[in-house]
Amino acid sequence: MIESLFNPGSVAVVGASEVPLKWGTYIAGNILDGKFNGRFYPVNPNVPEVFGYKTYPSLLDIPEPVDLVFITTPSKTIMHILQDCIEKGITNIVMITSGFSETGKEGAMLENDIVALAQSRGLHIVGPNTMGIVNTHCSLYATGTITRPKPGGISIIAQSGNLGFQILEWARSQNIGISKFVGSGNEAVLKIEDYLEYYKSDSETKVILMYIEGIDDGKSFVEIAKNTSLKKPIIALKAGRTEIGSKAAASHTGALAGSYSVFKGAVQQTGIVMAESPKELLSLSAAFDSFPLPKGNRIGIVTLGGGWGVITADECVERGLLIPELPQSIIEELDKRLPPFWSRGNPVDLVGQPDFQIFKDAVELMVANDAFDVVIVLGIIGAKVFALRAAESILNLGKMEKSIYDDFMKSLRVLEKEFLDRLTELMAIYNKPIVTVSFSKSFEDETIHDCGGRFKCVIYDTPEEAVLCVAKMYNYYNYVTKRSMVYA
Amino acid sequence: MIESLFNPGSVAVVGASEVPLKWGTYIAGNILDGKFNGRFYPVNPNVPEVFGYKTYPSLLDIPEPVDLVFITTPSKTIMHILQDCIEKGITNIVMITSGFSETGKEGAMLENDIVALAQSRGLHIVGPNTMGIVNTHCSLYATGTITRPKPGGISIIAQSGNLGFQILEWARSQNIGISKFVGSGNEAVLKIEDYLEYYKSDSETKVILMYIEGIDDGKSFVEIAKNTSLKKPIIALKAGRTEIGSKAAASHTGALAGSYSVFKGAVQQTGIVMAESPKELLSLSAAFDSFPLPKGNRIGIVTLGGGWGVITADECVERGLLIPELPQSIIEELDKRLPPFWSRGNPVDLVGQPDFQIFKDAVELMVANDAFDVVIVLGIIGAKVFALRAAESILNLGKMEKSIYDDFMKSLRVLEKEFLDRLTELMAIYNKPIVTVSFSKSFEDETIHDCGGRFKCVIYDTPEEAVLCVAKMYNYYNYVTKRSMVYA
Repeated sequence: MIESLFNPGSVAVVGASEVPLKWGTYIAGNILDGKFNGRFYPVNPNVPEVFGYKTYPSLLDIPEPVDLVFITTPSKTIMHILQDCIEKGITNIVMITSGFSETGKEGAMLENDIVALAQSRGLHIVGPNTMGIVNTHCSLYATGTITRPKPGGISIIAQSGNLGFQILEWARSQNIGISKFVGSGNEAVLKIEDYLEYYKSDSETKVILMYIEGIDDGKSFVEIAKNTSLKKPIIALKAGRTEIGSKAAASHTGALAGSYSVFKGAVQQTGIVMAESPKELLSLSAAFDSFPLPKGNRIGIVTLGGGWGVITADECVERGLLIPELPQSIIEELDKRLPPFWSRGNPVDLVGQPDFQIFKDAVELMVANDAFDVVIVLGIIGAKVFALRAAESILNLGKMEKSIYDDFMKSLRVLEKEFLDRLTELMAIYNKPIVTVSFSKSFEDETIHDCGGRFKCVIYDTPEEAVLCVAKMYNYYNYVTKRSMVYA
Repeated sequence: MIESLFNPGSVAVVGASEVPLKWGTYIAGNILDGKFNGRFYPVNPNVPEVFGYKTYPSLLDIPEPVDLVFITTPSKTIMHILQDCIEKGITNIVMITSGFSETGKEGAMLENDIVALAQSRGLHIVGPNTMGIVNTHCSLYATGTITRPKPGGISIIAQSGNLGFQILEWARSQNIGISKFVGSGNEAVLKIEDYLEYYKSDSETKVILMYIEGIDDGKSFVEIAKNTSLKKPIIALKAGRTEIGSKAAASHTGALAGSYSVFKGAVQQTGIVMAESPKELLSLSAAFDSFPLPKGNRIGIVTLGGGWGVITADECVERGLLIPELPQSIIEELDKRLPPFWSRGNPVDLVGQPDFQIFKDAVELMVANDAFDVVIVLGIIGAKVFALRAAESILNLGKMEKSIYDDFMKSLRVLEKEFLDRLTELMAIYNKPIVTVSFSKSFEDETIHDCGGRFKCVIYDTPEEAVLCVAKMYNYYNYVTKRSMVYA
């Protein structure tokens, strides 16, 4: 049923406009500039056309069927427009308009009227007070603030417009693929559970990401979350963890946040993976979308730089992961390739050898070995920056040809790309995650390396982020394995 | 005494070269390309010149006094070169060369010989196995890997070359000012305490940043740290917090890390501000270098976006900070400026008003009020991205002139700059920190806004980072106030 709301063949925007600073302009502009795959009908009785499209005075004047309506006009117009929807047989509505329960008593009464009408007429209403929806797979970018991440497997439910938007924007800037997005607004009609249920059955959604301020029907939420998380991972951040935060949430979206300890207790049974910050929401989602699940917690570390190995080993142990001894067979193999003073332990410190073949061999030795369930690779990606800096000095001092410098730069890029390609191959061969950390990402560097295979490389900025993702993936793996055994 | 090591009028590099991939090339190239303010003497018997500078076969052949020598030649040459140093009256030496205690027994014996000689002859030796030193104030960039942050107030001691270098590189990329840097290497002669003592007395150093793997003489370290932290803040990260991490540290720099709980206990009396990750080291240092210390823990939050207010309130409470009620006088003032449905609470949600005058007024109302010790400003800086995106859509759809778009972009930049200028003024007037968070920093945006006044704006990427810095600055303020009272 919500299926057609997220996959409309035709959309209408009531209040569509070209005038800057109006929501009707933002939504219409975003849909058109985002190159929506379906038909577009602007509704506005005051102008003959909007962005080159003929306008219609009302929904009833549109000669064809409309699958989804966006309403951007003031709250006092809403009941009239809903009557038009009913008359035209439109059941899917995204109500951008604000001025309802979030603003006080009068707004709350109007919102009650909407709910009553929706229930008697079977209307599916997103919002009101929502910033919109996205479905990248039909190129429907219909949010009031504009950002267009590329298509992918992560679907988002956000109970705050600005936070949800920001997560989309981070996804875009890091090239993380998104499937669907909904800002759930006041949840007058469609609730967080409804979106969760839809994402559960949606084949394009691999991972579900939620920003939660408050949940009305805890019991129903837990039930649906429990069933969903067995099928695909749910990553969630709960705001209002403290009393003060709850109060702020209440005044923000009118959500009754309830006690966080009650929420946390309920969530523990559901298998939801809890994030601790908005950024973590996205890095966890990227991990679940990109890696095979770790089948154990024994971590092998390969590092270009000893200090980073120490930091990462600490992080692993503090998160309940194990750092096994390095197997004798690997020591013998690496003895052939590394200088005599190498550490002969896990973390494997590659002591600055600038040789990508050694890097590849070392990672494969680790990932192929039964002693390890996950390999973390530190500092290899990004190290090109330092090699280039050194060359740049020689260039600046007039002792290197520019063409040699350029070739050097190009060859380092190729070597990095081949290394990442190899890591995705190794993940597919051994079905284990290989997690990469780059300390010197530059603007043109990717966060996700996708060469079209089953798995992708995620390149994290810090070891703490990488370790956290591994630890939480491993917990989820345990949860699913135990639950599946119980129900087998 | 170490003073002249960090402020040399002339330096020599033994092993200076132009051949790529040699340490003697990296160090010489970095010093020259970094435009060192003093004289430079390459020592190399095999080539007539290096980067246009006449070479000398040995240190003894240099006709003038040398204040500081870098040694980059293999370990077997060291004792001979040290004899030359003694003969020429050179006491300051940076020993880049590796192959000592970190590689085994034989190396350790050689290192012992160096220590003995240094003690009898009063040599100040950095390293061996160090990646070098930096003093931005005389433009001495003398590290093996190359990065050149701008001059500023933060001085660094790193017991890991690659980590230390990475912190320098992050400082450069975020435009955070650095005063001095030393990679302390094996600490055969000069120890972490010696550098700490020097930074304590160095007038260019405002904040001290340390990456610690292990400390030989805990008692002396605690004593010096205690005296130093009363004078200027010390921010430290200890690696080897877990047994596994300690083991990795031991094999990395040969450091005897000792138990972390013992270390933590000792550190508590010293007033050292402990960081939990390398990135946190730098963000804390930037905070201490930029803001007035908070004199209390009552936080006022001004936010463009309600969800972010909730997240930040939670973070504050979880870190022991308070979110007081909004004073009636501020409510009355903001009633005049904000739409009727604004939240009337702390966090103050500016409900999307695109008006920088309201932003400035709201922040000033908060910072001027006795109810608050710190103001956190969320989402105002960076919001220009969304305004520009909306305009860009209209531009793309042919309904806006390019020149209008360009003017709009320029005016938003100016408004952001004026806003940050005003925040630094307000900090100086009220002597309270105003901490800014931008969620959509782009490449050309600054992390530190410095308009030459007493204080600077730090623009954080996430509220958790901002709140953490405020909480730790407040703890430090408490420590110093109590200690100062005891000793008054």
